[in-house]
Amino acid sequence: MNFELSEDQIAFQDTARQFSEQELAPNAAQWDRDHYFPIETIQRAGELGFCGLYTSQEAGGLGLSRLDSSLIFEQLAMGCTTTTAMLTIHNMATWMIARWGTDTVKQTWCPSLVAGEKLASYCLTEPGAGSDAASLRTKAQKVADGYVLNGAKVFISGAGGTHVLVVMARTGGEGAQGVSAFAVPADAEGVSYGKAEEKMGWNAQPTRMITFDNVKLEESWRLGEEGQGFKMAMQGLDGGRINIATCSIGTAQQALNVATAYLNERQQFGKPIAAFQALQFKLADMATELVAARQMVRMAACKLDNKDADRTTYCAMAKRFATDVGFKVCNEALQLHGGYGYIKEYPLERHVRDVRVHQILEGTNEIMRVIIARRLLADERSVL
Amino acid sequence: MNFELSEDQIAFQDTARQFSEQELAPNAAQWDRDHYFPIETIQRAGELGFCGLYTSQEAGGLGLSRLDSSLIFEQLAMGCTTTTAMLTIHNMATWMIARWGTDTVKQTWCPSLVAGEKLASYCLTEPGAGSDAASLRTKAQKVADGYVLNGAKVFISGAGGTHVLVVMARTGGEGAQGVSAFAVPADAEGVSYGKAEEKMGWNAQPTRMITFDNVKLEESWRLGEEGQGFKMAMQGLDGGRINIATCSIGTAQQALNVATAYLNERQQFGKPIAAFQALQFKLADMATELVAARQMVRMAACKLDNKDADRTTYCAMAKRFATDVGFKVCNEALQLHGGYGYIKEYPLERHVRDVRVHQILEGTNEIMRVIIARRLLADERSVL
Amino acid sequence: MNFELSEDQIAFQDTARQFSEQELAPNAAQWDRDHYFPIETIQRAGELGFCGLYTSQEAGGLGLSRLDSSLIFEQLAMGCTTTTAMLTIHNMATWMIARWGTDTVKQTWCPSLVAGEKLASYCLTEPGAGSDAASLRTKAQKVADGYVLNGAKVFISGAGGTHVLVVMARTGGEGAQGVSAFAVPADAEGVSYGKAEEKMGWNAQPTRMITFDNVKLEESWRLGEEGQGFKMAMQGLDGGRINIATCSIGTAQQALNVATAYLNERQQFGKPIAAFQALQFKLADMATELVAARQMVRMAACKLDNKDADRTTYCAMAKRFATDVGFKVCNEALQLHGGYGYIKEYPLERHVRDVRVHQILEGTNEIMRVIIARRLLADERSVL
Amino acid sequence: MNFELSEDQIAFQDTARQFSEQELAPNAAQWDRDHYFPIETIQRAGELGFCGLYTSQEAGGLGLSRLDSSLIFEQLAMGCTTTTAMLTIHNMATWMIARWGTDTVKQTWCPSLVAGEKLASYCLTEPGAGSDAASLRTKAQKVADGYVLNGAKVFISGAGGTHVLVVMARTGGEGAQGVSAFAVPADAEGVSYGKAEEKMGWNAQPTRMITFDNVKLEESWRLGEEGQGFKMAMQGLDGGRINIATCSIGTAQQALNVATAYLNERQQFGKPIAAFQALQFKLADMATELVAARQMVRMAACKLDNKDADRTTYCAMAKRFATDVGFKVCNEALQLHGGYGYIKEYPLERHVRDVRVHQILEGTNEIMRVIIARRLLADERSVL
Repeated sequence: MNFELSEDQIAFQDTARQFSEQELAPNAAQWDRDHYFPIETIQRAGELGFCGLYTSQEAGGLGLSRLDSSLIFEQLAMGCTTTTAMLTIHNMATWMIARWGTDTVKQTWCPSLVAGEKLASYCLTEPGAGSDAASLRTKAQKVADGYVLNGAKVFISGAGGTHVLVVMARTGGEGAQGVSAFAVPADAEGVSYGKAEEKMGWNAQPTRMITFDNVKLEESWRLGEEGQGFKMAMQGLDGGRINIATCSIGTAQQALNVATAYLNERQQFGKPIAAFQALQFKLADMATELVAARQMVRMAACKLDNKDADRTTYCAMAKRFATDVGFKVCNEALQLHGGYGYIKEYPLERHVRDVRVHQILEGTNEIMRVIIARRLLADERSVL
Repeated sequence: MNFELSEDQIAFQDTARQFSEQELAPNAAQWDRDHYFPIETIQRAGELGFCGLYTSQEAGGLGLSRLDSSLIFEQLAMGCTTTTAMLTIHNMATWMIARWGTDTVKQTWCPSLVAGEKLASYCLTEPGAGSDAASLRTKAQKVADGYVLNGAKVFISGAGGTHVLVVMARTGGEGAQGVSAFAVPADAEGVSYGKAEEKMGWNAQPTRMITFDNVKLEESWRLGEEGQGFKMAMQGLDGGRINIATCSIGTAQQALNVATAYLNERQQFGKPIAAFQALQFKLADMATELVAARQMVRMAACKLDNKDADRTTYCAMAKRFATDVGFKVCNEALQLHGGYGYIKEYPLERHVRDVRVHQILEGTNEIMRVIIARRLLADERSVL
Repeated sequence: MNFELSEDQIAFQDTARQFSEQELAPNAAQWDRDHYFPIETIQRAGELGFCGLYTSQEAGGLGLSRLDSSLIFEQLAMGCTTTTAMLTIHNMATWMIARWGTDTVKQTWCPSLVAGEKLASYCLTEPGAGSDAASLRTKAQKVADGYVLNGAKVFISGAGGTHVLVVMARTGGEGAQGVSAFAVPADAEGVSYGKAEEKMGWNAQPTRMITFDNVKLEESWRLGEEGQGFKMAMQGLDGGRINIATCSIGTAQQALNVATAYLNERQQFGKPIAAFQALQFKLADMATELVAARQMVRMAACKLDNKDADRTTYCAMAKRFATDVGFKVCNEALQLHGGYGYIKEYPLERHVRDVRVHQILEGTNEIMRVIIARRLLADERSVL
Repeated sequence: MNFELSEDQIAFQDTARQFSEQELAPNAAQWDRDHYFPIETIQRAGELGFCGLYTSQEAGGLGLSRLDSSLIFEQLAMGCTTTTAMLTIHNMATWMIARWGTDTVKQTWCPSLVAGEKLASYCLTEPGAGSDAASLRTKAQKVADGYVLNGAKVFISGAGGTHVLVVMARTGGEGAQGVSAFAVPADAEGVSYGKAEEKMGWNAQPTRMITFDNVKLEESWRLGEEGQGFKMAMQGLDGGRINIATCSIGTAQQALNVATAYLNERQQFGKPIAAFQALQFKLADMATELVAARQMVRMAACKLDNKDADRTTYCAMAKRFATDVGFKVCNEALQLHGGYGYIKEYPLERHVRDVRVHQILEGTNEIMRVIIARRLLADERSVL
């Protein structure tokens, strides 16, 4: 047991911090206002390897551990939550393609995906299948030379701006066992995109519904075996949950830093408001919970790296805890700023809006509790 | 002690509900998107008396109690939080003008203010004087035939769209005793307006900085005596805190209603999500806290109506409690909607953004705690 | 709507406060240590009418409203939580006997019960039927001239020290409709008592299991009709929940008073600890939530007095909210005392131990949430 | 960074678990009831090295790291919170004696202290110097051949049953710099003991006031240099805070295990209560926070082992977080048991009473926040 970062890890952080401070932080507020999807910035992130962090080296990625990836994402999220979140989703989808894709698929997509020249979306959620993802109804019907895809996916991050879609669709009967996964070109015939959803935050990336109308899929586009798609999607999500939790941690650390500086600068009643004990205590609690959340995320990443039998539970715990703490810290940082926290001239209200969705996506925090409780009740004697 | 509404009160509610459902609710989302200040709707509210609810009948108002006013504002806030909040600020400022204005001022402003033909802003906060309002530095220097006003006010609701400004300015020495209040025409020479602040919410009303550059004030514009301005401002705020707390209650009730209906409709795992006990418990706690918050607000209103010795403490308690509960209920209603809670197609994210500022303005919830604690520690044997 | 007490109500409070300060407060710590059931003190409470507060005057009670009763119980609980809680249970059981008893039963028991010369217990919970009370298995089998009672009840307050038992038992089929209620003499043949449970608190009253072994019941001992027993038990509990919530409020107020005085007296770092803002804020929040809780209790009492259609929901809300707040306030008062809060020389740790059970009995706070949610989901458009 | 235990660490845990299950768990309830200080059990713990876990091998201890010690204490606390807590205090005092004692002192005390044949108390707190420990007034006046000690200490764990007292006393001027530490034989002439405090919990160890009346101290009894005593006391407390936090974690894990088993066993409404989702969610949150708290404790232990510049801050964070979580988890485990949680037949109410004091001693959780905030505000750019 060891809580210190290695020299390599510190170097990864430094590289990421530099990119974050130079390329993301100065633009994040503007991207939010303009609802601008900074594809060219993501490409530059790709040049540093950030588009295939935990994709295998064989497939062109950096082949880093989930822990190392989390360290990098955390720094990036300090600069722009939304762009980093998109980057993590791209990493997750890219990893799935590299992990389970046929040679054809890998050759087609991996080089440009890990380079950030092309982007990937993850397509699981449907209008009637959110928390109950296994009940999805998008159907990939087997035909002579492949499949025909029909159905619709909602809340797809990056949709309309990405180039390949990892789509979970039903190839068999009811339930999780009937689902397969496919890498579908975003511009395949029959794929159409809804309007960009207007959201509370995450404005620097488009979110759209995608409709599949008799989309012809080649058999080689299938990832892994038929019927394995749901399991793959869930394996992807283990990492996705660490990633999104990491985005909360990074953003919350940024909010905490801003708030701490503000407490030292802002004068009221003839002294810096840092002198007021109730605000000091608030700050202390924010920092303490944030440190706890960060450790939860890093532990879950290590458990995933080590293929721990309880990795899914740890990922669920980390996601639940860190995204709740992340929202709370950002929201209290806003409050510490008084009226200035509520206006867009300061970053706090954006941080609150951006991290809010982390409590919902990649499995709501309610679903995380279902996962955790199931494990606890199944094996009550084994300590986590 | 009696917790039932009278027939009159139920009638007030009905009138307000009808206006809210017909004039506010259908437009609130659009006003938020467009950052549109619906002056003409406020005027129609004025036709029903909603612009001078607790202004005396002598001054043209309805002369209702604070409790009755709260009942009405609560219904209105269910339709549009922001517009109702603006309306409550207008009511507060109008009441101050009617209560302490000279005959000249009252004749000039009251008829059109209570009718909603003209609107009023309340100008207390300064860049360096937020929570520490008594340290304000805007100066009204006595001259032969009146005063000359110099300084700046920030976060002024309605600024740029209102016609008269209730301005607290220093006419004497340091501290609260050196402050006087004035009713200043919004278009007086030397009054200039900053850009509309970009805010997290409350988008259906402009918020601006106001700068006073050698603005000539007539003596008759002064409200009450010299040196009484801060006290008046605080008396105005007692009611203002009930009002803003009321806006939180109304919005939270609306969010709760929407969430309850959603739980009954939304199907997951083969049944309405209302069947899931953890969501039921969440709903139960939201409703319970909301009922408690509503009673706190109504009790504070009664204490103000009765000029209870502890009215300021009760108003502070109600403001703190109800605005915290209001945010929590709206935020949890958002969560109950999953991804749909995060998009603007549903009202939840707007409710969250709108009520968030209630925890900050009219005295932050931190200042409320200062007020409450001071009272408790001063007279530890007297039960509230 | 009116939040002020009447002169009569203030007089009730004064009488109760005097009794509380003279008869309860000086002895409460000792009764707790000695596990002493102060029957003679309860009798003196009976002389003031406190043993039949809301029992009808016709049956010898004071015939007060539930609100008036709550005002009195609150004062008493400030002196001794446990004795007052026992008193409230006695009041509930006495009310049931007076409300539904046959003339025989009423003549036998009411005079001495309302006088406090004899005491009553309420016997609903069974080892296998706690939250699921309607599944109770204690059986009252119909025989020629009455019933024969067999079964067991657990967690019976006062058991072994009381004279009459209100027993819910099954006279018919499964479910709530098969239950009847009886007034059973505590010394009837076949009634036996378990050992006094060792508890965390509530030590000034015995809690025991009661076993019924072929206890012969006269038909006249039945309260109301056959099959109405569960409904009566629940009607009793509506009031019982207000009562126990009241005990939490009174105790918490006492804890708050003690803590406030302590903050003003205790010196650290060269000043009274009342000067530390974080402690002030804590105190402010304790007081605010306590005021909210008190109003919830009083509102629920009024709703019960007015036979409001939603009275059960209001009682459940009040019980959930006030007992949670009560525990929190007592627990934080303990913390404000530091090490002194943890020792029995100060009353705080006793307050914490005593109010803890209020979150559990008379229906756990989880069951309260079930009741509240059921109502909300059944009629989502009606505001509470 | 690595979150896995080594084989050695797992072996330490196993040894400790075995001792805990065999020697502590079967007796803990009885010791609590009887207020029995199990000195002979502590001696048996000493045989396993548990009385000098992180005392240097040179001084006869095991010389383990703080992390290893925490792993052991956690297992012990699962069996008996109070005995383990006493053991941790003994370890802390023994470490101070071994670390800073003169050869005389070390030879006199260390062999029997590490063996558990004799026990040590830590004497810092005074009636007027709790949180403000540096203001202590117990005075060690320099005389020809040593010092004369006068004053009083309160809340001393083990007092009356221990053999040596580590006493912080003033040898110089005001403030922390005027304090020195001494190892004083518990039976020295002039040392007298108050009555055993009656406490909420921690009943398996005595807590007493100690009065020093002209106690003659030899110069060799001084630990370290004059004026270094407060610094030593605080260094001792860094570890003491990890220890006490560990006791909370162990107890909470035990409570969680008991509650999980209970949920699976207890039937209501025709199914195990584990089937109720709201209880599942509660359990999931308890486990998640407990895992987070455990990591905080272990990280702080590592920081202390590594002499990290921020070790005091990490220890304060761990103590604050883990003792709060510990109480919360135990208290919710009690609630999950309903009425059974409130009686001494089950362990839950004891767990709640025992861990409650951890939020107070070794520096209250309020003082922890002071420590944390001071660090945050002093160096706002450095991330913890």
